[in-house]
Amino acid sequence: MIDIAFVGTGGNMPMPHRFLSSLLLSYKGRKVLIDCGEGSQISMRLLKWGFKSIDLVLISHLHGDHILGLPGLLSTIGNSGRHKPITILGPEGSIEVIKGLLLSLKYLPFHVEIVELGETSLSVDFTKEGVDLREAKAGDDFCDLTISTLELDHSTTCLGYSLYIPRKPKFSVEKANQNKVPKEIWKRLQNGKELVYEGVSYEPSMVLEGRRRGIKISYITDTRPLDSIPSFIEYSDLFICEGTYGADEDLEKAIKNKHMTFSEAARLAQEGKVEELIITHFSPSLEEPSDYIDYARKIFKNTILAYDRMVKSVSFK
Amino acid sequence: MIDIAFVGTGGNMPMPHRFLSSLLLSYKGRKVLIDCGEGSQISMRLLKWGFKSIDLVLISHLHGDHILGLPGLLSTIGNSGRHKPITILGPEGSIEVIKGLLLSLKYLPFHVEIVELGETSLSVDFTKEGVDLREAKAGDDFCDLTISTLELDHSTTCLGYSLYIPRKPKFSVEKANQNKVPKEIWKRLQNGKELVYEGVSYEPSMVLEGRRRGIKISYITDTRPLDSIPSFIEYSDLFICEGTYGADEDLEKAIKNKHMTFSEAARLAQEGKVEELIITHFSPSLEEPSDYIDYARKIFKNTILAYDRMVKSVSFK
Repeated sequence: MIDIAFVGTGGNMPMPHRFLSSLLLSYKGRKVLIDCGEGSQISMRLLKWGFKSIDLVLISHLHGDHILGLPGLLSTIGNSGRHKPITILGPEGSIEVIKGLLLSLKYLPFHVEIVELGETSLSVDFTKEGVDLREAKAGDDFCDLTISTLELDHSTTCLGYSLYIPRKPKFSVEKANQNKVPKEIWKRLQNGKELVYEGVSYEPSMVLEGRRRGIKISYITDTRPLDSIPSFIEYSDLFICEGTYGADEDLEKAIKNKHMTFSEAARLAQEGKVEELIITHFSPSLEEPSDYIDYARKIFKNTILAYDRMVKSVSFK
Repeated sequence: MIDIAFVGTGGNMPMPHRFLSSLLLSYKGRKVLIDCGEGSQISMRLLKWGFKSIDLVLISHLHGDHILGLPGLLSTIGNSGRHKPITILGPEGSIEVIKGLLLSLKYLPFHVEIVELGETSLSVDFTKEGVDLREAKAGDDFCDLTISTLELDHSTTCLGYSLYIPRKPKFSVEKANQNKVPKEIWKRLQNGKELVYEGVSYEPSMVLEGRRRGIKISYITDTRPLDSIPSFIEYSDLFICEGTYGADEDLEKAIKNKHMTFSEAARLAQEGKVEELIITHFSPSLEEPSDYIDYARKIFKNTILAYDRMVKSVSFK
């Protein structure tokens, strides 16, 4: 199971009742943060999930409303006594801009690793020392997380993210016995390691049942709709998408500012055959997003609107 | 009259009920901001004084809790349609750090002028195009504002600020007539301009009564107490001072972290013979600052404790 908190659900500028875009994922006692607008740490404090265990930060793009909360948050994490490094993934240009933001921090007791990404797919393992990243292998059911990126269409380089949390195949005592696998190496095979034991080669499939579906969560903001999005988000259990503007009548503004309306987000959800759509990143002009929810629901029924500190859990099926 | 709003009154990190250090002064329809921690623009929105007319920003020092709200605020001011430049005054190092913070802003429709200061005294005039700065002349009663700085004792270069709002001398028709000053130039002389008219030299004292006391407001944070502070803040109408820690028992922490306790702030107020002390910049550990107010009041009776969006007006006497 993965828990997801919408730390902030606004775009452009922070409002007293709506902080800026930020999403916190909690899985296996570790946390992944996606975007971090100004004030995110205040909303996180209200959320009471703690900051200290954030190992990985994903940045969609380098506009202030998605990153200006980073230096303050890292400073507060530093004050909480963290020493393990934190890894930040973001688009091209992240190193310069984020290092610029961090100039005002007197001292951080941990290393900040900034990695610039294009379109890619990475396997992530949570380790004692933070995270291990490597190029993803198709069908890797043994890493903690796979992160894929898609280039979006905004006024600056912007990445969409899709997170896949694999579910390990079930262990089969029957198969292990059938294949005459010694008990001493069951655990290692179950964890996906091939190995040679007393001169004989063993592989995980000798003790495991077939693959099981994991959890796919996709996050798309800020962008215009793109033909590449539906296949990128396909079959997501949860599709988190920007809906900066509510009404179809605001389409012109959406086009001008390189954002989406609720119905454009819903159309992507429908084409991507996702399970559920959560719309977020509302314009400050959108005082009551729920006034516009029908624009989305008439296209994609299973739509809900995010609000600050809304919590959602997604389980393996 | 000058109006002062305590936008945020916390130190170190922003809390849900207490934003970080930031002070807004409103005078003659123009605004001066002193420090700008993360989230300041949210508190300013609740304050409802508007952002657009901030012409001048004074930065005490370059720690995150005093400056991380700057890029978001400037971005929001940009969205409000301001085109006039904004001037930022701060200690040595301000240009590099603030430019670093501004890297994430896509575009600002106004120029940001950053000026690094040591110990100095500047006269400020609000102009159509923002502000004019020049070296202060003693007894200049015709500028809009005089700003003096003092080097403080913190873990980084830090400036205290003292603002003096001069009060123009009264115009005297009697004196003007006595000195045979032509009516055509009364206005210009009243505004402090010396001039030659029809071959005769005139100076302001020929139409003005004696000097009148202006308003002095001093702002001291973050620092240990210094012998130089009492004379710098002397006779302030309002002395705004940090009191990171409430109880005398926290003196050791105050010394270690280069801050002050309430009673240290009060002692400075007493030695500086100020009219009124307002303590601000409370540690996140100080849940209820008013529990500790007696530590200050037993030394300096006219002490009050700031809270977010507290508004105070100071008038000419």
